[in-house]
Amino acid sequence: MVYFETSFPVRYYETDQMGIVHHSNYIRYFECARNELMKHIGYPIERCEAEGVTIPIVKVACRYKHPAKMGDVVTVSASIEKSPLAKLSVQQVVRNQDGQVCVEGEVMLGFLGKSGRPVACPEPLVKAIEQHLNDR
Amino acid sequence: MVYFETSFPVRYYETDQMGIVHHSNYIRYFECARNELMKHIGYPIERCEAEGVTIPIVKVACRYKHPAKMGDVVTVSASIEKSPLAKLSVQQVVRNQDGQVCVEGEVMLGFLGKSGRPVACPEPLVKAIEQHLNDR
Amino acid sequence: MVYFETSFPVRYYETDQMGIVHHSNYIRYFECARNELMKHIGYPIERCEAEGVTIPIVKVACRYKHPAKMGDVVTVSASIEKSPLAKLSVQQVVRNQDGQVCVEGEVMLGFLGKSGRPVACPEPLVKAIEQHLNDR
Amino acid sequence: MVYFETSFPVRYYETDQMGIVHHSNYIRYFECARNELMKHIGYPIERCEAEGVTIPIVKVACRYKHPAKMGDVVTVSASIEKSPLAKLSVQQVVRNQDGQVCVEGEVMLGFLGKSGRPVACPEPLVKAIEQHLNDR
Repeated sequence: MVYFETSFPVRYYETDQMGIVHHSNYIRYFECARNELMKHIGYPIERCEAEGVTIPIVKVACRYKHPAKMGDVVTVSASIEKSPLAKLSVQQVVRNQDGQVCVEGEVMLGFLGKSGRPVACPEPLVKAIEQHLNDR
Repeated sequence: MVYFETSFPVRYYETDQMGIVHHSNYIRYFECARNELMKHIGYPIERCEAEGVTIPIVKVACRYKHPAKMGDVVTVSASIEKSPLAKLSVQQVVRNQDGQVCVEGEVMLGFLGKSGRPVACPEPLVKAIEQHLNDR
Repeated sequence: MVYFETSFPVRYYETDQMGIVHHSNYIRYFECARNELMKHIGYPIERCEAEGVTIPIVKVACRYKHPAKMGDVVTVSASIEKSPLAKLSVQQVVRNQDGQVCVEGEVMLGFLGKSGRPVACPEPLVKAIEQHLNDR
Repeated sequence: MVYFETSFPVRYYETDQMGIVHHSNYIRYFECARNELMKHIGYPIERCEAEGVTIPIVKVACRYKHPAKMGDVVTVSASIEKSPLAKLSVQQVVRNQDGQVCVEGEVMLGFLGKSGRPVACPEPLVKAIEQHLNDR
């Protein structure tokens, strides 16, 4: 499994008038962890885009367990279980500082070439993922 | 079915460097349509909260079909197919001005009382929904 | 003066745990009104960008008078008092449905050409503004 | 001067279709640094709010010098030069990893008591600020 996690404090603007992190922000937290994972395995998103491939989202699923709040420091993980072909599937979890699961989800990513047409996952990203598949 | 739709232009800040609406924003578009639906059936979210019940999100699923872009005017729908008990399930679609489906999804909502404990859907909301179940 | 205003309901995700619209969102409301103004005078931002000129922000000032809240329908105005040269200055006001001023501000915009270098305001935008300078 | 800075990577969703961080997000970066400063001096915002005082924004000014981009790690500073009375004034700077100034600004904060009326800066916050005024 390729695994990466990153931690950061909840930001005030991410809260809503329920006094908790607005549900849409966990989808953004997921993305933070995915992009840090890409950086960590040596193929950051901005390099991927510079090489002509963009990575649009195909599908998101998100289950909310426990709200994150102002004052919390969340840890967000991204894990990839198998080498991607046309699609890349990422498992994601957001935990608070007590290790409590706030949100769990899955994100499926596609790949578009310069023409805007679907392409296979770029070779350098496949390789970077495969090199780290036994990390944890 | 209780059905409501609302239309608005894509906002510039909602785009990302792929040149399309960032995927997290459709989750927010969904919420706009749900809240307009609640207003339309006579029980707006702020009244619900003033009466002591908050409506946290339990689950979101979202399938991305076609990107919305700056210049688009999107129409976002929310539909409720059956009367809620402990949970309320809402079907959601975002279309562009050509009628093309951009994103489809489902959102499941829960209800919390003043104590922060799960409660049943408040009676006025159940009634408001039931009165409109044959709308369309 | 070139004047345009646009109205929309406050969105739930725009509120924060103080129970009011987060201060950063008025800056975004300002942009909505500016972009609607550009559309109204016949030169929408996406056409401007397609023609190779981007419009980065140079300066923003914002004075907060009265909070907007969930349930409010805000009216956001953008007004241009003189024809732009290298910079375009826009006056902005956000009012609630009672006509009460929530926020006032000024935004100064610059223009960048394809090379990323500052350029003068594109001729079609100057013309569109000048044609509407006596609108109100 | 009370000084604090915090660093974090630019998030993808913060970029817009110009390919740079959307201007509204620097206002949010400012807030991150202010809230980290409050935590650092021992009086976090959530404690302040729990004690019945909220801190709405009165005024923001922001000058944009150089865009932050995806891949950048920004450092955001907040500095307070004098002890607050009814208002608290904070100087803010966002720099990129090369030390280049992206944005500079000032934020003025007010204080509201439980009744929603303006109050003086809470005593514990005044003390916390005064204890750190010679920090740097």
